[in-house]
Amino acid sequence: MKLLEQRIAKDGIVINNDILKVDSFLNHKIDVALTRALAKEIAEQFKNYKIDKIFTIETSGIPLAFAVAEEVGNVPLVFAKKSKSLTVGDDVFKVEVKSFTRKTCSTVTVGDKYLLKGENVLIIDDFLAEGNASIGLVDLCHQAGANPIGVAVAIEKSFQPGRGKLEAMGLKVYSCADVKAFKDNKPVFEL
Amino acid sequence: MKLLEQRIAKDGIVINNDILKVDSFLNHKIDVALTRALAKEIAEQFKNYKIDKIFTIETSGIPLAFAVAEEVGNVPLVFAKKSKSLTVGDDVFKVEVKSFTRKTCSTVTVGDKYLLKGENVLIIDDFLAEGNASIGLVDLCHQAGANPIGVAVAIEKSFQPGRGKLEAMGLKVYSCADVKAFKDNKPVFEL
Repeated sequence: MKLLEQRIAKDGIVINNDILKVDSFLNHKIDVALTRALAKEIAEQFKNYKIDKIFTIETSGIPLAFAVAEEVGNVPLVFAKKSKSLTVGDDVFKVEVKSFTRKTCSTVTVGDKYLLKGENVLIIDDFLAEGNASIGLVDLCHQAGANPIGVAVAIEKSFQPGRGKLEAMGLKVYSCADVKAFKDNKPVFEL
Repeated sequence: MKLLEQRIAKDGIVINNDILKVDSFLNHKIDVALTRALAKEIAEQFKNYKIDKIFTIETSGIPLAFAVAEEVGNVPLVFAKKSKSLTVGDDVFKVEVKSFTRKTCSTVTVGDKYLLKGENVLIIDDFLAEGNASIGLVDLCHQAGANPIGVAVAIEKSFQPGRGKLEAMGLKVYSCADVKAFKDNKPVFEL
């Protein structure tokens, strides 16, 4: 069993056979040594690619994305924003993204200077389920003329269609933990 | 001039002699090597303290907070949340925080299991100005019975009262860049 799957089995909490809470080590309180290990694992998976930029969406994917940016050679990290602040100008690419967990729709933006034509972008997030957030980030890359090469996430729920949609777009998808089902409020990693 | 002050002088943008945009290297597109250097600088400043946890608020402070958590010995990083998601239960400490930049008030929460009685907490953020966010995090520490020892930020606007309020509460305050004024839409580091 992979490192993160072991940790999820130990400390993850499943609610209503549906929502996996990893707040105690991944996305509210962060185990930084674990995050570093996952970043090294992801960098190893993408070592044959030239990566120019790491791209994520606020908030929960940022620690892992930062660590991956260091591991692949200190490339810039850009995070897309879910709400517009007074300090973000109008020079942005934008896309609408539906959140599976929050049951809401957000306008996601990125400054149009921060994704560049022709650069290779690796997308990082904490979860991959329906794939809506990742597909939104791919869309932002395409608006910029950048080249999204892959999506790496901490946790994939592979009974949902996110991976298939991304692979159909030609992207390499890697997850540090693959939840294949929930059963009796526990994650199942092997069917 | 300090490392971050040099970078702000080069790449920071001041709008209306009021708002400093550092989106191109600190809080939208992140220069990860710079962030790592700032984290080392902060860890050096707090080397005589026993630090049990790093605490920040989503979103912009997270990369620096993550790097500092590694630099002070792989302690856990906790970030307070500005909005309540379906995966956060009711077991939270909460405080109201006014955002200087966004001119809005937010309810900021942290899971009540993630700050512990008696532990030493170092608060990290990207900006210190009015001090509202940092004071909100101090309040959350106090609700938990934790011991906030200091606040370290990337950029301080020392013509605003944040530092004074925090020092009056007995906290050590450190900033990697001290903007003493804005003049002709440029930051002034030496008066």
